Amino acid sequence: MVSKAVAKYVHALHLKKYRLRHEAFLVEGGKSVRELLSSGILTERLIGTPEFLEKIRAEVPAGVPVEVVSEEELTRLSTLSTNNTALAVARLPPEKPLQPAPGQLLLALDEVRDPGNVGTLIRLADWYGLAGVVCSDTCADPWAPKTVVATMGSFTRVPVWQRNLPEWLGGLPQELPVYGADLHGDNVHRLTLRPTGVLVMGSESHGLTPPVEACLTQRLHIPGRGQAESLNVAVSAAILLDNFYRHEVG
Amino acid sequence: MVSKAVAKYVHALHLKKYRLRHEAFLVEGGKSVRELLSSGILTERLIGTPEFLEKIRAEVPAGVPVEVVSEEELTRLSTLSTNNTALAVARLPPEKPLQPAPGQLLLALDEVRDPGNVGTLIRLADWYGLAGVVCSDTCADPWAPKTVVATMGSFTRVPVWQRNLPEWLGGLPQELPVYGADLHGDNVHRLTLRPTGVLVMGSESHGLTPPVEACLTQRLHIPGRGQAESLNVAVSAAILLDNFYRHEVG
Repeated sequence: MVSKAVAKYVHALHLKKYRLRHEAFLVEGGKSVRELLSSGILTERLIGTPEFLEKIRAEVPAGVPVEVVSEEELTRLSTLSTNNTALAVARLPPEKPLQPAPGQLLLALDEVRDPGNVGTLIRLADWYGLAGVVCSDTCADPWAPKTVVATMGSFTRVPVWQRNLPEWLGGLPQELPVYGADLHGDNVHRLTLRPTGVLVMGSESHGLTPPVEACLTQRLHIPGRGQAESLNVAVSAAILLDNFYRHEVG
Repeated sequence: MVSKAVAKYVHALHLKKYRLRHEAFLVEGGKSVRELLSSGILTERLIGTPEFLEKIRAEVPAGVPVEVVSEEELTRLSTLSTNNTALAVARLPPEKPLQPAPGQLLLALDEVRDPGNVGTLIRLADWYGLAGVVCSDTCADPWAPKTVVATMGSFTRVPVWQRNLPEWLGGLPQELPVYGADLHGDNVHRLTLRPTGVLVMGSESHGLTPPVEACLTQRLHIPGRGQAESLNVAVSAAILLDNFYRHEVG
């Protein structure tokens, strides 16, 4: 059993306010915990079931405090509906310099409020090896437990930043392309896109906010032939990124 | 206030067993309810807040029983964390004949257990105007409330079937292509894919089940350049479908 103080600390980290105050976040579930332990992010504390901890014993870096709990207790500490493996408290990684460079593509998210979508987008950024993900202040917290779970381990590899998005975009060099999805944009199948600059994705319900839209240098349209009005934000980003990288990778 | 019998009926429809027994399902939230009312699917009953019902009065077909409730009562009936618009009970639409035809592409889902993913995939099928979605018996129920919400209205337009997937695939004409995603498959950027046959997507954690994999006629790979091991199933399907339709639409 963990102490009351530890239980209180873990529960506090369910909330953004306390993640910022303590500069720490939660990593839940076996796969994510293993990715954390083999990454450069510092693990403060590991709490798990006896079976799982036994299985990963060799992967735990020296000096990480480990506590053994029952599945019931672990589930009570966790935000997951059940947890029979582990959770870890990790230090928020220090922010890297945010310097868009030619030949690199950044993904920017404008008011993407669903943590599952933000996590899926970070995982997608990892797949394409993007320079990182810039989240507007109004996005779901990239360090929320639901976001971290949805990244499927990519939270250890993809740099993320939180910024006032119109302000940041407004300060970029004039010559840097800023792309966004738009139903009236250019058909991506007819373009030869190169992964340089910034691709901005908006919220599902409202699209890009006007101040962000004003910063775009090119609008991109994904042609469809059915009757859906729109696509999920991660789905749209995936199709666009595949169009950016289809001339590069392979 | 709705009667106890109605409240019990609505709560029963949260569960698959009772959806099958009553041949009915729940549609929750303003957008989905409006799509339902303008579709060919029969509405049994509409329950909403006074403000929302007033707004959509002209859209409600004659003969649909309408009940006015408070936001609190609506939320209690609903599976959503809050509902300030409406929910409807709808009849499960009769199944259409499932006959793969040349020049048409079907999406098949193999053990996709997350209802949000199944819903997002149905929405994606609508975007590309696919012939429909065939779900394995082991998928999340396409008529579950979470699935219906995630389709963003596409549940009214996309035919879905539930089948024993290996059995159904095994009975298809020999000449019909059956595609599946595979890390060791052919690079989709180097193929000219045509939307005919079946595209099968597997579960996130385990990929395609062996009996389904044995039915594939071509394996497709989405090239990446980062370090993520895999992509979300809806994200992968989106990229593949864009590669199928890029020579067709636009």
